[in-house]
Amino acid sequence: MTLTSAATFTSSRQPDPTRSVASRVLSVLDAFSGECRRLTVSDISRRTGMPLTTAHRLVGELVSWGALERDRDGRYQIGLHLWEVAVLAPRGLGLREVAMPYLEDLFAATRQHVQLAVLDGLDVVYIERISSRDAIHVHSRVGGRWPAHATGVGLVLLANAPQTAQEQALSGPLAAFTSKTIVDPGALRRMLAEVRRTGYALSDRQVTLDAVSVAAPIRNAAGEVVAALSVVVRAGAPLPGTVPAVLAAARGISLQLLRNPQGP
Amino acid sequence: MTLTSAATFTSSRQPDPTRSVASRVLSVLDAFSGECRRLTVSDISRRTGMPLTTAHRLVGELVSWGALERDRDGRYQIGLHLWEVAVLAPRGLGLREVAMPYLEDLFAATRQHVQLAVLDGLDVVYIERISSRDAIHVHSRVGGRWPAHATGVGLVLLANAPQTAQEQALSGPLAAFTSKTIVDPGALRRMLAEVRRTGYALSDRQVTLDAVSVAAPIRNAAGEVVAALSVVVRAGAPLPGTVPAVLAAARGISLQLLRNPQGP
Repeated sequence: MTLTSAATFTSSRQPDPTRSVASRVLSVLDAFSGECRRLTVSDISRRTGMPLTTAHRLVGELVSWGALERDRDGRYQIGLHLWEVAVLAPRGLGLREVAMPYLEDLFAATRQHVQLAVLDGLDVVYIERISSRDAIHVHSRVGGRWPAHATGVGLVLLANAPQTAQEQALSGPLAAFTSKTIVDPGALRRMLAEVRRTGYALSDRQVTLDAVSVAAPIRNAAGEVVAALSVVVRAGAPLPGTVPAVLAAARGISLQLLRNPQGP
Repeated sequence: MTLTSAATFTSSRQPDPTRSVASRVLSVLDAFSGECRRLTVSDISRRTGMPLTTAHRLVGELVSWGALERDRDGRYQIGLHLWEVAVLAPRGLGLREVAMPYLEDLFAATRQHVQLAVLDGLDVVYIERISSRDAIHVHSRVGGRWPAHATGVGLVLLANAPQTAQEQALSGPLAAFTSKTIVDPGALRRMLAEVRRTGYALSDRQVTLDAVSVAAPIRNAAGEVVAALSVVVRAGAPLPGTVPAVLAAARGISLQLLRNPQGP
């Protein structure tokens, strides 16, 4: 078993080799990441594999529209206008706005990290996290991705995903982060069945050996699981009360989605 | 004086008439707004002024990359992947993450709406708002825009903006929302000077006749004003304590920006 360190993990997105102009423009945006938020045109040219002149021209177009901005050192960063548009994504801020009061209540009740995530392919994407300065360190960042099988929110989302997505997760390689990460497809299949049976997931020390997460599903008006909520606690800390609290918060958000058209 | 209702106000952004492919791709994203988050290809074609076939092709590219997603009714919405990239914008989420603990503390202390905004052209863009269910209604939404001259955060940002931006604001027409909105350039010039002198802005019933906002500037490591923070209270409510609290929160965020490289 090969342990994958959190620092070297990269998402499963691949650049599109058949490059239309539209996809080249969008690939410039993909050059940016959590670790690299400010890039020069040379960086962008190198990371996208496009010639310097092309990169320069497309960067100009993106700056003109506001998807990129130039900082005082002459490097480029993701621009405000892209964020203004992205804020309209129902699966991003739309969901977060509906969920926020419940996340805050759960945080006030538990004083532990509270996370909200959605499934994208075989990864979870964290939409929000409320953190406690007193609680343990977590790897996730808002907008960040993580392989679903290795997280509480991910186990909930996979367990309720369409059959094709589940089979894809069960057939592909499963990255390991600790000695407790579920990497055996049979064990994962049994875990997903257990999550469906109990209605929640307990992810035991799969990402770091000092943390456990308790997660529950959030459903939209059509009854589909569209997101998951979790609380991350120190491994070995007592759990009674945590599972009902997480389930109650998730149910509260689901009820809100019944009424709110802006959610997913 | 013509009163502009909040419902009919539109931003000052104009579509680019010289349409490269890159700008056409980006203009599809501009078709979406706070009021219209789910659109059909026909809607997009109509709003962008491009032929249906072109709109259809570009929508396909944007779906492929994840900037748009198709909902179960066959309409398109802003996609998760656009949000994932946009989250990297230092002037969006980067700033918000640094500011959040201070916004929460200010909210806990005042139990009033707390807002965080940046300047874009002659508009403010709201990066975050923490709202109280007991407080008065506010028009702003996260990711929304408003003309700077008519808001507390906007007065702070304009007062500290480069001379050219100030002169532009002072020379253009100033939209009115209430009988108290500052629409006279001379009055605005005097107000901006007052904001610089006192170090904060009091925006008196400029957006609705029942609300007043108290705003203060947030500075980056280079001492430039990069954002503003405000508390919105009911007009006529006692203010002592609010001004020092807002100033203290803004100073706290500024200190954090000194240390934090992810901010603007």
